[in-house]
Amino acid sequence: MAVRVLVTNDDGVHSPGLRALVEALAVGSEPYVVAPEHQRSATGHAITLHKPLRAFPVVIPHAVSAWAANGTPADCVALGVLDLLGFRPDVVVSGINAGANLGRDITYSGTVSGAMEGAIFGIPALAVSVDAFENARYDVAAAFASMLVRLIAERGLPPDALLNVNVPNLPREAIRGVTITRLGRGRYLSKLEKRIDPRGQAYYWRTGQPSAEEEDPGSDSYAVRHGYISVTPVQMDMTHEALLTALRTWEIRLESSSHHG
Amino acid sequence: MAVRVLVTNDDGVHSPGLRALVEALAVGSEPYVVAPEHQRSATGHAITLHKPLRAFPVVIPHAVSAWAANGTPADCVALGVLDLLGFRPDVVVSGINAGANLGRDITYSGTVSGAMEGAIFGIPALAVSVDAFENARYDVAAAFASMLVRLIAERGLPPDALLNVNVPNLPREAIRGVTITRLGRGRYLSKLEKRIDPRGQAYYWRTGQPSAEEEDPGSDSYAVRHGYISVTPVQMDMTHEALLTALRTWEIRLESSSHHG
Repeated sequence: MAVRVLVTNDDGVHSPGLRALVEALAVGSEPYVVAPEHQRSATGHAITLHKPLRAFPVVIPHAVSAWAANGTPADCVALGVLDLLGFRPDVVVSGINAGANLGRDITYSGTVSGAMEGAIFGIPALAVSVDAFENARYDVAAAFASMLVRLIAERGLPPDALLNVNVPNLPREAIRGVTITRLGRGRYLSKLEKRIDPRGQAYYWRTGQPSAEEEDPGSDSYAVRHGYISVTPVQMDMTHEALLTALRTWEIRLESSSHHG
Repeated sequence: MAVRVLVTNDDGVHSPGLRALVEALAVGSEPYVVAPEHQRSATGHAITLHKPLRAFPVVIPHAVSAWAANGTPADCVALGVLDLLGFRPDVVVSGINAGANLGRDITYSGTVSGAMEGAIFGIPALAVSVDAFENARYDVAAAFASMLVRLIAERGLPPDALLNVNVPNLPREAIRGVTITRLGRGRYLSKLEKRIDPRGQAYYWRTGQPSAEEEDPGSDSYAVRHGYISVTPVQMDMTHEALLTALRTWEIRLESSSHHG
């Protein structure tokens, strides 16, 4: 039986990255789409609690069925799994995003959050991004994602795990290979650009700049910068093990909250 | 010199949990507030890229200065650190939230994301929640947070680390103590409630139900359920170490993405 894949993204149902992914998936699997009606960048792992969610059918070439929804990527996965599809998909794929999702910055990523929601439902999940905001090419990423979807459908992933894939924006022949990586320490440094509106009031745009180049050759950003497809296994347990041990020696007590000490 | 604390939350600048926290902090530290103008629950670690951010001064009793902003908790921390305060705060505290933030569910938490943004700036950070959506009492949580703020200002935290604190909704004398915990595996199970509007169109509310009770006595939810204040060290590296090793044996290659195999 064909692998049934739920596809979402955070650039919106009409983005070329999603279209390319669906077309590549259709060769060996059955793609179903539930994706945001609009772009949703930098939503983090948000879910919509305070307004009603709606989904309406759309036509996406090569998709078995497709819906656009007024929610986040995580909402779209929940809508697909719990109601719209009418069955449990074998794999959840989020992407293909225009712009890499690397290192610590994945906590901001709508693309990764779509895959996280799949993992939370216990479904093998994949997030796929290309390392270019403009003039992104999706051919290599789409073909690789399609292969990887069939692989994780067959082999499974541990509970609470997903794969975060980043592909250099290069033609096939310039890609040097595939590397299994860890999340690097590099990230966009948060900045604010302050402006004054015509009424004299201040407002701000959030911007960022890349931190110093990642030097760890085992990291995701190092791999992508050197022409490799990066595959990073991601898990949801954010416990800081080393600090757990250290904190126990602090002997924190409720009593020290009084002002008698 | 007094410890200078940046306070944010995701229930909004007018929530009683934030007010109680600021009042308790003012006893031994200098609290500054930058918090969302409205409630922002379940925003995840979202940041605002596509609209201008604005902040306006508000009066919060016991705060040195306070602003309300039209962004997420993470946006508020960036606004405070990068512009509004005019100095680098010693500690970032997010809370006090009405409703626990436990286990895998912290990826959805606006409260925790405010502390994460602080950690990303390299500032010791704390998220504080009380285990009650209704009739939450903040006295114990506020006193404990105030003590812990001074402790982490003095001792520091490792880079990329924050503390996630959850307090049972009990009077002081019923609290059994303080425990250092790990993030539990329990979580709210995602559900959707489907309804039909007066025009005959379907819409959905996201809801949830708690999963089976956490049995791990070292977990955050077990501690809170048994009357202990839970302090969990959280880090931002979500690499799945065990799967990293396993994936390397899969020998994933770009070539297998062709359809010749």
